This record gives sequence, C-alpha cells and structure tokens, in this order.
Amino acid sequence: MSLYAPWSLRALVRDLATGATTSRAALDRARARLDATEPELAAWVVTSTEPDLSSSAGALGGVPFGVKDIVDVAGLPTRCGSALRADAAPARADAPIVRAWRRAGAVVLGKTVTTEFAFFAPGPTHNPAAPGHTPGGSSSGSAAAVAAGHVPLAIGSQTAGSVTRPAAYCGVASLVLTHGRFPLDGVVGLSPSLDSHGVFAASAADLAVAWSALDGRGLDKAALDGSALDGAAAAPGRPPRVLFWSAEALGVVDGEMREALRSVRSRLADGGALVDDFPEERLVAEVTAAHPVVMAYEAARERAEERAVADRLSAPLAALLRAGERTTDAEYDEARRTVAAARIRIAELLSTYDVIVGPAAPGAAPEGLAATGDPALSRAWQACGLPAVAVPGLRAADGRPLGIQVVGPAHDEARLLAHGTWIENHLA
Amino acid sequence: MSLYAPWSLRALVRDLATGATTSRAALDRARARLDATEPELAAWVVTSTEPDLSSSAGALGGVPFGVKDIVDVAGLPTRCGSALRADAAPARADAPIVRAWRRAGAVVLGKTVTTEFAFFAPGPTHNPAAPGHTPGGSSSGSAAAVAAGHVPLAIGSQTAGSVTRPAAYCGVASLVLTHGRFPLDGVVGLSPSLDSHGVFAASAADLAVAWSALDGRGLDKAALDGSALDGAAAAPGRPPRVLFWSAEALGVVDGEMREALRSVRSRLADGGALVDDFPEERLVAEVTAAHPVVMAYEAARERAEERAVADRLSAPLAALLRAGERTTDAEYDEARRTVAAARIRIAELLSTYDVIVGPAAPGAAPEGLAATGDPALSRAWQACGLPAVAVPGLRAADGRPLGIQVVGPAHDEARLLAHGTWIENHLA
Repeated sequence: MSLYAPWSLRALVRDLATGATTSRAALDRARARLDATEPELAAWVVTSTEPDLSSSAGALGGVPFGVKDIVDVAGLPTRCGSALRADAAPARADAPIVRAWRRAGAVVLGKTVTTEFAFFAPGPTHNPAAPGHTPGGSSSGSAAAVAAGHVPLAIGSQTAGSVTRPAAYCGVASLVLTHGRFPLDGVVGLSPSLDSHGVFAASAADLAVAWSALDGRGLDKAALDGSALDGAAAAPGRPPRVLFWSAEALGVVDGEMREALRSVRSRLADGGALVDDFPEERLVAEVTAAHPVVMAYEAARERAEERAVADRLSAPLAALLRAGERTTDAEYDEARRTVAAARIRIAELLSTYDVIVGPAAPGAAPEGLAATGDPALSRAWQACGLPAVAVPGLRAADGRPLGIQVVGPAHDEARLLAHGTWIENHLA
Repeated sequence: MSLYAPWSLRALVRDLATGATTSRAALDRARARLDATEPELAAWVVTSTEPDLSSSAGALGGVPFGVKDIVDVAGLPTRCGSALRADAAPARADAPIVRAWRRAGAVVLGKTVTTEFAFFAPGPTHNPAAPGHTPGGSSSGSAAAVAAGHVPLAIGSQTAGSVTRPAAYCGVASLVLTHGRFPLDGVVGLSPSLDSHGVFAASAADLAVAWSALDGRGLDKAALDGSALDGAAAAPGRPPRVLFWSAEALGVVDGEMREALRSVRSRLADGGALVDDFPEERLVAEVTAAHPVVMAYEAARERAEERAVADRLSAPLAALLRAGERTTDAEYDEARRTVAAARIRIAELLSTYDVIVGPAAPGAAPEGLAATGDPALSRAWQACGLPAVAVPGLRAADGRPLGIQVVGPAHDEARLLAHGTWIENHLA
C-alpha cells in the first residue's frame, strides 16, 4: 500500500455539499486511513478518538484537519516536540487560526508532529512520497498527514522554511500566510518578526477552496468546480505576469531542480504567461543571509525560558539560542535594515508583476530522517513577510517530488492562490 | 509662560554633534523644562532622577525620550493607567521598540501618562497647545510632553487613533509605524491585529531624522540640514502624488477642519504636487465601521484577565470588553473580511500614488479633560496596518492646532516621512 495518497479537499467539500458523503463518513475515512498508515508514518502526536461533529456547519463543515503541535487547540496540550513540554497542561483556548478554521466548519482530528520547538531537531515522521527520505520540517507531521491522505487540510507554521519545504518534499501544496494575517497568540513562536501561519492541502486548487472558506467569503463555487480561472472574484482572468527566480545566487539549487525549473519556465511561457528574469538575485541572497541573524536574535529572547535549560534542548536548538545571545544589537539592526530595504524593493516589483516563481527547496527530499533539509529558498520571502504557495506536480528521476513556490504581494492570498492554481494546471 | 514649546530634535542632534551642547546639558534642559511645567501639565507617570548617560553613543546619543506607560522599560513598572497595575513589578526587559531607540543612543527620561489600558478613560494630562482642552489619547502624556518641550521624542502606541489624534490636538508630529514593523512584545496591547507602535516629535522633519537613526542607516545628513528633499536616499526628489481624502463620508469632520483642508489642498497643488480625489470614501467608511468590531472582539480575548475584574475598570473599558464578548464569530469574520479587501484596494492605490492626505482628527481638541476625542479618522488606516504621519502647522481661529495626516504604503516609513516633510514645508 503506497503511503502517498493525498485527499482532495475540493472533492470532499463537493461530496459533503451534495450529500454524496457525510461528516461522519469523512471522519471514518480519515480514521481508517490513519489506522492503516500511521504506524509506519508517525505524523501525529495525538488524535481525537471522537471529535465533535455537532458544530460542523459552514463552508468546510465536516472537513477533518490536523494542527501542528506548537499551535494551541483547546483541551489538548501543546508539546512542541520537546521533552520540556511532556507534561504541558491542556491549552485553555484555540489559537485564532484554529478558531478560524473551526468556524468555517472544519473539525480538529489531532495534533501533528513538529520538530523541537519548530527548529531543526526532527520528530519520527516519515515522508509518504519518498520512503527513507525526510518529510522536511518543521511542520513535518502536517505535510506528511496531508500527503498520506489522513486529512485534506493541516495547519503548520513557518519561521524559515518550515511549511514550503515539507510541502515540496512530500509532494503537496502549501500556503504561507502574509506575516501578521492572523494574530500569533496561542502559537509557541521562535521569532515574532518572522513567524507566520501556514496550511497544507493536496493542491493549490484545494488551498484556493480552503482559503475562500477561511477568508469568510463563503465557498468559491468557481474554484470548487475548477473554473476559477474564468470567473472567480480572486482570479485574474489572464495568465500571470511572472518574475522567474532561478535562485542561482544562493548556490544551493541542485541539477535536478535546475532542470525542472527550465521545464517550468517554458511551460508557463507556452501557457501564455509573461515570464521575465527576476532582477534582484543578489538582494535576495543578502536577505537570505540576514534572515538567520534576525531569527537567532529574536529566538534567544522569545525562548529565554528554554535557553535557561539548554542542556535539555537538542544541539541545534541550543546552538541557535546561543548564537542569538552572541548576536550583537548592531548585527541585528543591520540585518533588519537589509530586510526592510528588500521589502520595499520586492513590493515595488510585485506592483508590476503578479508573482515571483522559483524553487521551493534546493531539490528533492534528502535521504534519511536525521535532518530536515535546507530552508534557504524560503528565508528571503519569509523575512519580507510575503505569502508563498508551494505547488506540487514535478518529480525527480527517481520519483521524489520537486516543489516550486509562487510568491505574491502581502495580504492578497486569494489572488496568489488563483495564480498558483493557474501555474499548477500548466505544470500538469 | 506658555506650555507649548516643542523642542526640535534636529537642532538638538546637530548641537550634540557639533559639541554646541552635551548629553548632560540636554538632560538638564529636559529636567528644567519638566520642573517648570509638569505640575500644570501632568504628562508623566514617573521620571528617572538620574538616567544613565554612559551608553548614549549613537546617532541620537544623549537625546532624552519618554515612553508611554503600556510599554515595558527595564526596571520600571508598566502601570497602564490602571489601578489594577498599581503594584506592578518592574519590567525585566525593554520592549523591542524601546531597545531600538536606546541602541540609537536615546536616553529614557521616564514613563508617560496613558489612558487606562490605552482605551478611552483619560489620565490627568493637559494639552499644552490648547489649555482647557483634551490632549487626546491614549498616548496623552507622550504627545503633551513633546508639545511642552520636555523631550524632543516620545513613544506611543495606536490601536484606533491613539497617536495621530493626540499629535493633532497638541500641535506636534507623529508617526504610526506599519503594523508588525517591530515586535509587540513588552507592550500591554488591546488588539493584536491592530496594535502598532508610534512616535512623537515636534515636526515631520524631526521624525525623519529620528527614523533614520532608528532604522539604523545612521543619521540622514540631508534630513538633518533640511535639504532632504533634494538629496536624501528616502526622499522622492519630486513633489508627491497625492490622493486627497476629505473624509466626508464619515460625517464627523467639522467646519474649521473642512476649511483647513481646502487650504491644504490648494497649497499642495501650488507646490507642484499632483492632487487627485481619493476614490474610495465609501470603502474607508466601511472599514471605519469594521474596525471597532475587530478591536472589541480581540480586546475581550487579549485582556481576558481584566475582563474578569470588570468592576475595577472604567465604564468605557468595561463596555468595550463586554461588547467584545457579545461580538459573534460571524461578526468578527465579516469585519476582518471587510478589512482584508480594503487593504488590497488601498495598496493598489498606493502603488500609483505616493500618499493619501486627509484630516488627522475631526477638528481641533474638544473642550475639557473628561474625554479624549474621536479616533474615527484613524480607524481605517489603522485597520489596514498602514504607516501614518500626523503633520502639524495648521490652526483653528482660536489658535488650537489642527492636524492633517499622511498615509503611505506599508513598510516604507522613510519615504512617507520624506513626503510628510515636503507637505509640512508647503503648509508653512
């Protein structure tokens, strides 16, 4: 039995709407799939044996979803993949982002595996799309649970590349929300100026449906039946104007990804998209270098409590917090300045072009479970606080997924997802 | 002795740089001015008798500043203008925004009066520019301390109109930072999706100097000597392209302000600015109505602890928290949706125009100290998370200050301040 079998949110929502299925049957399906594959996958920290279906009215009524275990769900502990939190008390309230999905009718199936405090030390989760390879991190469990079809929707979070990278490695789609889109209360964060919410689904088209529900506009019928590009409010009604980012200046993109990018570029152009070279490769490299400075400095302060018991942390997290302590105010200032200037320049570019398209990760998922791969390709966009969509569909020669990402202007997730869906359709 | 005597930050920074004055002399001047007028003004909660001048290197080395008493300063309690906090322990660390000003060399003179938890119940502060009239709120003490020349710089915060309005009433300039520009840690907030940092100075030109120091670029020499418009990096080198917002759709602007706006409009046009009508009056009215819904809903959750002891709160704050409890999820969703759509539309407009210019308050400061005036003119921009500069210089017939505000695109405070300075110069 293949572990990789993403569950289409659109199909489920349609079936729930037409009565072809029920929320009870959807939950049974989730549990059956989970029982069959979770022992091998290890995507979950805890699942509800009997989630409450009574309040599952709304656009996503009855859609089961998973929540990364650094995000509060009322009544469940938030353990953050850390022994320090083994005895955490149940959270008193849902984080706002969880509340928002619940209000749209979705039903919490459980908490998913995170790396330790959403940094690098991995949990036990496997990659359903590339056995023996990392699922990526830090939102490992959410990406894997969606890739394995346990749930059609899962919540993650990203400070560096914690959503986009696992989506790419596991062959699913993700959306990183604009920084500040929802309050971060109830999220055990690393870096308040970088931490963002994220969400996983089988495809960008599924995310467009999910977002239209979260955004409260009610379901986008056009997105639901696949005609979004011709009619939906958020859809551009034309091929996107694309800045194509090769990321060569970062020096981390591998040969297979490079080849895949060439193919993406020509398919977009063939589809009628305007495709120009991204003109600020060097600036992005500078911001990519500035990002870890901001992250370490803020993490040392945000996680001061854990810093005080560094001997109970993994080596990478202890090193991050130590690095943050050693980071001088002047270095932090300089890094924030680099980011601030880049934000303005990228926003300028995105007032003329619709999206930036580039690699979501250096290549396919690296071998082994000991490390979660390199977040370098996300650092710059994350520092700029921009929303990003990981689009699946490409494969390396051995079948491992290769992801690309689509970055758009702040606060317009709906339009970004419409462009992402257009791109997804033109990769197929 | 007139209470109104703003202290030019530019002049002080120049004098400190040339050795015409020293940080010790600046502090003595602040204390002398404070001793002479504070009994009448009541702008401060606490002042340091002997602030540390030893670490006052940096672009603002030796510049004394005040901090609104909802923002943490290490070693001082954060009392939030509330009896509930009368015995608050000293804060363990500076809030990031305080740390940033200190790193630029500025020296904390003390904590300034805030309304109760930065909502409507006023403190004892008087308006130096309009005796017998409110200084506005919630950052009452910071605005008044700058207007009275106690300090050339003070920190505030804004959730609705808590920076822009007191600046306008007290005849000083203010900058509301882009939402999320600095982390909100160490700030006792009301509404995480609305709370922003703010800063007061005598003029927009002073704020441009202050910002260039905070931003870490080092002092902007061109801003310092007043030639910013011809040379500085952030300066546009041309008159701004202005969308002129009359705010008539809100129905609150009074006759004197309306007349002042006509004069502003013609002076901008005479100066060579492109001035077009703001085309989304109605949208702004909708967002203005949505803002209090978001604020109440979030405040009821953010201040849940205080909600539990509502009998110890002022009537307005207790009513806000009750309103937030009664606000349904659906109402909150609908309000956030309105805001989200407006953000996108306003950002579109601000990719073609440089700034939106309109009234900072309905008119001059209302009479009496029992209420702090109407924040309606700020709600929409605040909901959209945009930076805003209040520009002083206009007066009502009886001499009370009238303020206008200049709103720009997210994250480019430097350019906004350059445009604000251009506008300020053309009002004089």
